[in-house]
This record gives sequence, C-alpha cells and structure tokens, in this order.
Amino acid sequence: MTTAQMLSSSSEALSEWEQHLGKTKIDYSRDTCSRYEATCSPTSHTVVAVLYPESKDDIITLLRTAERFRIPVYPISRGKNWGYGSSSPTSDNTAIIDLSRMNRILEVNTELGYAVIEPGVTQAQLYRHLLNNNTGLVLDATGASPEASIVGNILERGFGQSPYGDRFLHSSAMEVILADGSLVRTGFSHYPQAKAAHIHKWGIGPYLDGIFTQSNFGIITQMTIWLLPEPEYDGLCIIRLANDQAVGQTIDRLRGLRMRGLLRSTLHFANDLRVLSTLRNFPYEQTDGQTPLPQPLLEKICKNHHIAAWNAIGGIGGVKQDVRHTVRELRRCLRGVAHVYFVPSKIGKLSKLIARFTSPSSVLRVNSDLFELMRGKPTHVPTRGVYWRKKSIPSKELRPTFDRCGVMWCSPVLPSTERDVVSLMSITRKTMDEYSLETNVALSLLNERACCATVGLFYDREDPHGDTVAQQCYHSLLDRYYEAGYIPYRYGINSSDAEETLFRSDDTFWNTCQRIKGALDPHRILSPGRYSIT
Amino acid sequence: MTTAQMLSSSSEALSEWEQHLGKTKIDYSRDTCSRYEATCSPTSHTVVAVLYPESKDDIITLLRTAERFRIPVYPISRGKNWGYGSSSPTSDNTAIIDLSRMNRILEVNTELGYAVIEPGVTQAQLYRHLLNNNTGLVLDATGASPEASIVGNILERGFGQSPYGDRFLHSSAMEVILADGSLVRTGFSHYPQAKAAHIHKWGIGPYLDGIFTQSNFGIITQMTIWLLPEPEYDGLCIIRLANDQAVGQTIDRLRGLRMRGLLRSTLHFANDLRVLSTLRNFPYEQTDGQTPLPQPLLEKICKNHHIAAWNAIGGIGGVKQDVRHTVRELRRCLRGVAHVYFVPSKIGKLSKLIARFTSPSSVLRVNSDLFELMRGKPTHVPTRGVYWRKKSIPSKELRPTFDRCGVMWCSPVLPSTERDVVSLMSITRKTMDEYSLETNVALSLLNERACCATVGLFYDREDPHGDTVAQQCYHSLLDRYYEAGYIPYRYGINSSDAEETLFRSDDTFWNTCQRIKGALDPHRILSPGRYSIT
Repeated sequence: MTTAQMLSSSSEALSEWEQHLGKTKIDYSRDTCSRYEATCSPTSHTVVAVLYPESKDDIITLLRTAERFRIPVYPISRGKNWGYGSSSPTSDNTAIIDLSRMNRILEVNTELGYAVIEPGVTQAQLYRHLLNNNTGLVLDATGASPEASIVGNILERGFGQSPYGDRFLHSSAMEVILADGSLVRTGFSHYPQAKAAHIHKWGIGPYLDGIFTQSNFGIITQMTIWLLPEPEYDGLCIIRLANDQAVGQTIDRLRGLRMRGLLRSTLHFANDLRVLSTLRNFPYEQTDGQTPLPQPLLEKICKNHHIAAWNAIGGIGGVKQDVRHTVRELRRCLRGVAHVYFVPSKIGKLSKLIARFTSPSSVLRVNSDLFELMRGKPTHVPTRGVYWRKKSIPSKELRPTFDRCGVMWCSPVLPSTERDVVSLMSITRKTMDEYSLETNVALSLLNERACCATVGLFYDREDPHGDTVAQQCYHSLLDRYYEAGYIPYRYGINSSDAEETLFRSDDTFWNTCQRIKGALDPHRILSPGRYSIT
Repeated sequence: MTTAQMLSSSSEALSEWEQHLGKTKIDYSRDTCSRYEATCSPTSHTVVAVLYPESKDDIITLLRTAERFRIPVYPISRGKNWGYGSSSPTSDNTAIIDLSRMNRILEVNTELGYAVIEPGVTQAQLYRHLLNNNTGLVLDATGASPEASIVGNILERGFGQSPYGDRFLHSSAMEVILADGSLVRTGFSHYPQAKAAHIHKWGIGPYLDGIFTQSNFGIITQMTIWLLPEPEYDGLCIIRLANDQAVGQTIDRLRGLRMRGLLRSTLHFANDLRVLSTLRNFPYEQTDGQTPLPQPLLEKICKNHHIAAWNAIGGIGGVKQDVRHTVRELRRCLRGVAHVYFVPSKIGKLSKLIARFTSPSSVLRVNSDLFELMRGKPTHVPTRGVYWRKKSIPSKELRPTFDRCGVMWCSPVLPSTERDVVSLMSITRKTMDEYSLETNVALSLLNERACCATVGLFYDREDPHGDTVAQQCYHSLLDRYYEAGYIPYRYGINSSDAEETLFRSDDTFWNTCQRIKGALDPHRILSPGRYSIT
C-alpha cells in the first residue's frame, strides 16, 4: 500500500469503527493519539485512533474492520510499560486497542487460591479486592506501578516479589481472540465443565499459552493467576554488601540454597544508585548542575542515607518455625560473605525495627513499602526511580511519559554464579561510564539457577543530548551483553538495531514464529513487529 | 490416495530410505513391523517400516523422502508407552522413526544442575551416569520402566516422584526438527553463546516448547532437564488410610500445606489393589479361576500383606532440621485424619525399619524400591502391576506388549479437594465394578492445587472377552469423567470415540492447533492423528 492508500483505508476504517462500536469507544483526536504515541525514549510510532472495547464482542467487531481494511491494531492493557515502550505501538499508522475498560475480576476462588481477571485489572485493584473481601490471599505483586495491568505484565513474563516470582509460571487458562475473531480457551478451560480448568497449567494436547506471551499472535481477554495464602508469620531479610564480588558470591551461594529447596524467597539485590534513585533525584545542587555523579559524591550521599554498595531484601513467610529455620539456613549459607538481618514483621511496628539498621527515615519508608510489596501490596517506590535525572520528583501522581522522563530498561539473564555476576557488572559499569550515565542495576533470582539484571538507563528527555546518548548507551550495552552471552528476557521498542542481534531473519527460531504468525494472523494486523522479525 | 497408490509410494519410499540411510538403519520385515504395531490393547495401526536414525542429519534425510512420497512417519523415543499405545503409530501405513540410537548424554553440568540429553536416553542410563560420575545430582525419576525414555515421558508431560514432580516444568532448551527438515532451538538456546540457554525456561519472544509437547508438530532431538542435588538427609513418609473419604481429607489438607510452601514432596497415594498388583498377580488359585476378585478376598489378602485401603508414600529430603520440621508440619496438618510414619533412610538400613510397619518382606522390598525411586533410581516395581490378570509375572525382563498384558490408563486431573477425590473415586468404583475389573488407582499431587488419578485397566489379552470389555469400560470411564469435569492430562491411542468428547472438531482450541500444524507440517506427515482432530 502507498501512504495515500493507507490513509484512505485508515479513514474508512475509522468511520466503520465509529459506526459499529459507537462514539464512546473510539477517539481519534490528535491529542489522544499523541498521548498514546509518547514513550520514555525517542522511539515511537504513529497512532491513528484509540479503540476502547468493553467486551469480547467489541474486540471481535473491531478486528473484523481491521482485517478488512488491513489496518494494524496494537492491544495494550494499561499502557504502563514505561521504559519498554509505554503505550506506543511497534508500527506506524496503527490503531491502539486500549483494554482498560475490560477490568473485571471475574472470580476469586479462596479454596483453590486463584483469580480470573481481565487485562484491564490493575495491581492495586486486585490487591484491594483481595483485602476488602478478607480472602486471606495475596497477589504476587511486581515493582511496576500499582496502576499497571497484571495480565500485561504476565504476557511480558515479568516477575513478582513474592515466593512465586515467575508470574507466567503461576498462571493458566487463557482466553484469546485471534485476528479473525476466533475465541480460543487454553489448558483445560476449553472444556466448559472442567474442574481443574484454572489450576492445571498444561491441559491436554499442545500447550499453547506460551506462544501468546511476548508475541503478536492474539489478544488475551482473560487469564487465571494463582494467589498465595497470607503467611502466618513473616519478616524482612536485609543483606548489605560492599561490592560486586560480594554480591556475586552471595548469589552463587543462594543458588545452592534454592536448588536444595531451602529458600523460596526471590531475593532482589539493588545497587547503591538503584536505591538512591527511589529516595531522591540527582543532587544537581551539589554538582553545579553537572552530570554524571562523581563517585566520591555518590559514596558520601549513600553513606548519609545508610545505603550500601548493594542492598538485598527478601520477604520470608510461613509458619514461625519454618521462617526461623530458613533465616538460620540463610545465615549459615552466607557465613563469611555477608550478615543477614532479619526483621520479623509482627514484633511491634516493622518500621521501628528497620530503623535500627537503616536510617534516616526515607530509607525506612522505602524499605517498609518494599516489604509491603513483597506481601502483595503494590507501591510507587520503584517508579520514583525513573525521575532520577529530572529536576524534581512529583509529590503526587507519577506520569513518567508525560513528565518526559528518559527510561530504557535492558534486562539480561545470567547464571546465578559469582563469575557471571562479576562479568556482567563489569560490562555494565564500563559501558554506562563511557556514556556518563549512572550505573543503576537490580539483580533478581528468577529461578533456582538463573538471575536477571534489570539495568535502568535513566535520563532527562529535556536534556538536548539525552535521547541520543541514552540510545547509544543502550545499543552498546545490548551488543556487549549479547556478545558475552547475556540475552535479555524481555524487549521493548527502543532499538531498531536489534534486528542484527536478537531478531535475526536467518534464525530458524524466529522463522518458526513467523510461520505460526502466518497461520494465526495471515494479514499481520496484530502488533506487527512486536517480538518478531519484520 | 487410493490404497494401491499408497502401497506403491510406500515401496518407492522404502527403497529411497534404504538407499539414503543405508541398510542398517531401516527394517521393513513383517516381523519387525508387527513388533512395533503391537500394543497392550486392541487399538493399533499398521507399520510399513522402522527407521533407526543415528543423527540429526539422518532425520533430516529421512523426512525429505517422507515429504516427497507423503508417507506418514511416527517418531518414538523408546516405545515403552505401555497402556497409552506402546510403540504403535496413530495412523495406518506409517513408518516408525525409532530414536533409540540417539541416546547420548551430551552434557551434565554439576554447577548449575542440569543434563542435556537425546531422546534415546533411558532413565536407567542417566541414573547410572549420574551415580558413576559422582555428580551429586539426581534425576526426577518416574514410575515408568527404567528402560523408558526421559524425553519421551516429558513430551507426554509425565510426572516424576521427586520434589520436582512436573517434569516438563523442569526442562528447557529443546532442539526440534520440523517436517521440512528445519532445525529449531528454543528458549535462549538458539543464541549459541547464551549463558542461560539451559537454565531459563522461556527465552525471549514466544515460548514455543509447549507446542511440541503432546503434539505432532516436530521431532525433538535434544532437551535439557534440570536435576536435583542429592539431599543431605532424607527419609520416607508413609501414610495409611482406611477409605476414599480419608484419602480425600488428606489430599485436601495437603493442598493447604503445599500452597503455604511447607511441603515440596509430591506424595503418591495408591489404593489397595494398586499396591497388591505390584506384589503378585490375581489369586486365581483362590477363586477357582474366576474374576473379578470378591471384596472379602481382596481385604483378606491385603490384610496378610499389611496393605491398607490407601497407602501414601513420599520422600522428604533436605537438611536434617528441615526434614524434621516438614514431618512435624505434616503430622500437625493431618492430625485426626491419619498418622504419618517417617522412616529416616540413614539410621541403619531402611528396610529393617520399614519392616516395623510393613510386612511381609515383599511389601518391604516394594517400599524400599519405591523409596529409591523417589531418590532418582528407576524401578520395575510399578510395571509389574500390569501383569495383574496374567497367570504369572515373569521373574526376568518385563515385556507387557509381547506378553499380551492388557493395559489401558485413564488419567483425569482433579482439584485437590475431598469433594473431588470422593466424587472421582465413586465414578471409578461404580464403572469398574460394572465391567468386572478391579479398581486400581493412584492419586498424585501434580502441583499445589491439583492432583491426577492414574486409573489402570489391567486385563489378560488372552481372555477372549478381555479387549472388548476393557475397551467398553475405558470409554465409560472417559465419558463419565468427562461429564463430571475430570479431563485426562494425557491420552493414548486406545479410543476412537474420543473425537466425540476430547477432540471435538468444533472446538476452537483444536482448530487453532490444526492451524499451527498446517504451518509447521503442511503435508501432515508427522504422526497424523496424535493429540489432534483428524
């Protein structure tokens, strides 16, 4: 199609959508479209309309029009994918399908411990629902915004902070609408009477759910997530580490503990800057407005805030004796490497106890919020970090895209060994230094054997060179990680160069994905370019 | 194609295979073909040749011929899928691809705890390899034969007896050959340098592994399985239960324990007949050769063997204190329902201790073998059960297909609640009584919330009515389970009626599978009919 043809079919499609869905479910004003185009990085694509389906039927209806006019559509759940593309599509002249109005909690089963939810359901919404209904169940919450979609995060295979950790692993029974409007239910859930529909992952026959994660094969309209029972007793483990080697040794030893089943908690390690950025923005007043932050000044500020070079926290819950046993094992395992502080949540107020180890009060508050996060209460704390290079952090609503925060996440997966942690950190520090960005890393235990680094490139998009420098840094990081064998677990829309590394067209893996795409979406109207070779 | 055309293209294909692979890698003698056609039930399909590839290149070569002549091929790993179709294909005039010569253990990584294996690797082979090389690692062994393929079982999503239990869950990095000879690597393993290729399940982009389980989309030539560290300390839990309700209550309470992370062990519950059948065959001498077994006689024999109505066992391992803690929790949780016996493996010889609770010596030996199974050593014990209705059990090699054992497995999944256990058992007993087959059931905790019943229909194929009665019973069971919402996790080739229940052609799930099949194997040469509508 030529651009002229494209625009003409766009405009015909818009009127058909308006006619079939009604005026309240479409918005093609430039203002609205711009809002959806905006990201936290220079990469973006043009949006021709935003559709707001309120039901499966609406989705089936709108897909019919998209198919007929060959207009690409790009479903988003809540559009809070900051640092991985926000709500922007991966191709131009695309209509956004904003699923936020499909936000029903369809079922919470307290006996079997699961919830069936639509993509518009936010972390905060489910958290409140579970609490207000005294379900005794908690959500495996992530560090994403409380307003972020749970389903959206699972489809990106994000990880939570509870013992579950791998959120996709603890989900089942998808309901998917394909490009031609077919409605498919996965696992056992396509048998309406199946008693184990929501609690068995695989079903019978090919296990399909996986192909609908990190892909553009269908629109997920419903999913089951497994919930955890509230622990009888719990507390917060805090580990302070002096350098990259110490964090490497710690992770190495924890691998053994997890492989032997002695630790369920998914510990998270944040470096000094990762913690600092959740407390305050860049200390421009102490550098005469200059960036980057000199190492001695970083150390001084961190000392004042009682932040170590690396700070690990993890919630440990269960019956009292079990928790104590785990803490003992953790201490035994880390003897000679690190001291493990354990703060039981029930002895008095948690915050007062944390204060013994961490002051002043800001760190205290952050730790307390992070502990609540591990117990299923989403928090804004991690999101505050993306304002690091801004002149100030808003005291109310955080809107990183609107506020022109520069954010790019690079998230390589590595074996949980000292060798790999040290090697990854060395690449990271070297590269970020070269581009004068502060090294900002969290390391999370993904499973028994592997961990994931989420490396944040935070800058100010008002800075005239910000976008260019960050993008160069991002590509350097990605290239160097790739060379060293540290492949990201997740990807945004920040890089068009990735086709030369991650998404090579001569890779039979991606070609197989393309064949499946062709079978399920022959006209390639769903999210073209998302997690695929183009 | 007409039958004549089919035979003619078969014969051309045979000569091309012989020419391209060499005489040692093909066998189309009637004797051999018959051996592969034989199953433990009346359902079977005709085999035109057996191909024995020794490498990926051999597979690619033989697929080219199959594609050209449109000859269906049916890959098997070791062909020990007794009770689910043995080595028989799911369509007539098919060439078997016997992968038993591809049996290399390609890597064992003791640091990260995994093995990379080919489909021909047997349980016994990997067990010995891990032991002889002092790896300190153990396999999540299943109750299948020691000579059964590990990869084959994982692709059927079988479950093991260690804390891992769900074997597919603990695997990654498949290597798959598609019908057109494309070689695809999944997860991160298509990036040759990826450091987490073997230890991260999902990779980046669509997660494909799932579609290659219980399907006919490709031939898996390699896979990574995760291994467990040998526990420092372990022992065997034994629970004896008086009736179906007690087993229901126990499973219900264990669900809570598992959901709270206090029990990792995958306990297995075997009813009286399941245990008895591993000890001896049907007591024809006490019934004047009549079947079925009268209830009073069953009870008498079980009493002699010290077998309860239900007998649960599970291995519990870890550090000593942790194991003791788990046993305490288990006892606390089951107070008022069942007594939990715990026999530590290291205090003296296990067998002597088990003898306190279980005599005579045959039960002792079986329990001891089953305990070793939970510690990763495969055993013939469960396979002996399929000789139940035979006149004798061979003392040496067990060859159920050759020995004309009648075996059909039906394996519905149910929520781990008392209500569902009782309801499933009631259907099972009623139906098996109607067909005069002994109720033979094991219940296994599949995950935190669901369990699986493996219901065995054991009969003697020498009995002139055996096949017919068993098949009718099987279909009744399947229908009633289906009606009640208990869908099987796995399926054999025993039933052609299943198309009306499990594999309905108006089910969009199966239609979506067909679309993927069309994209990956357009001429449908790979295992037509296997886990699919036809």
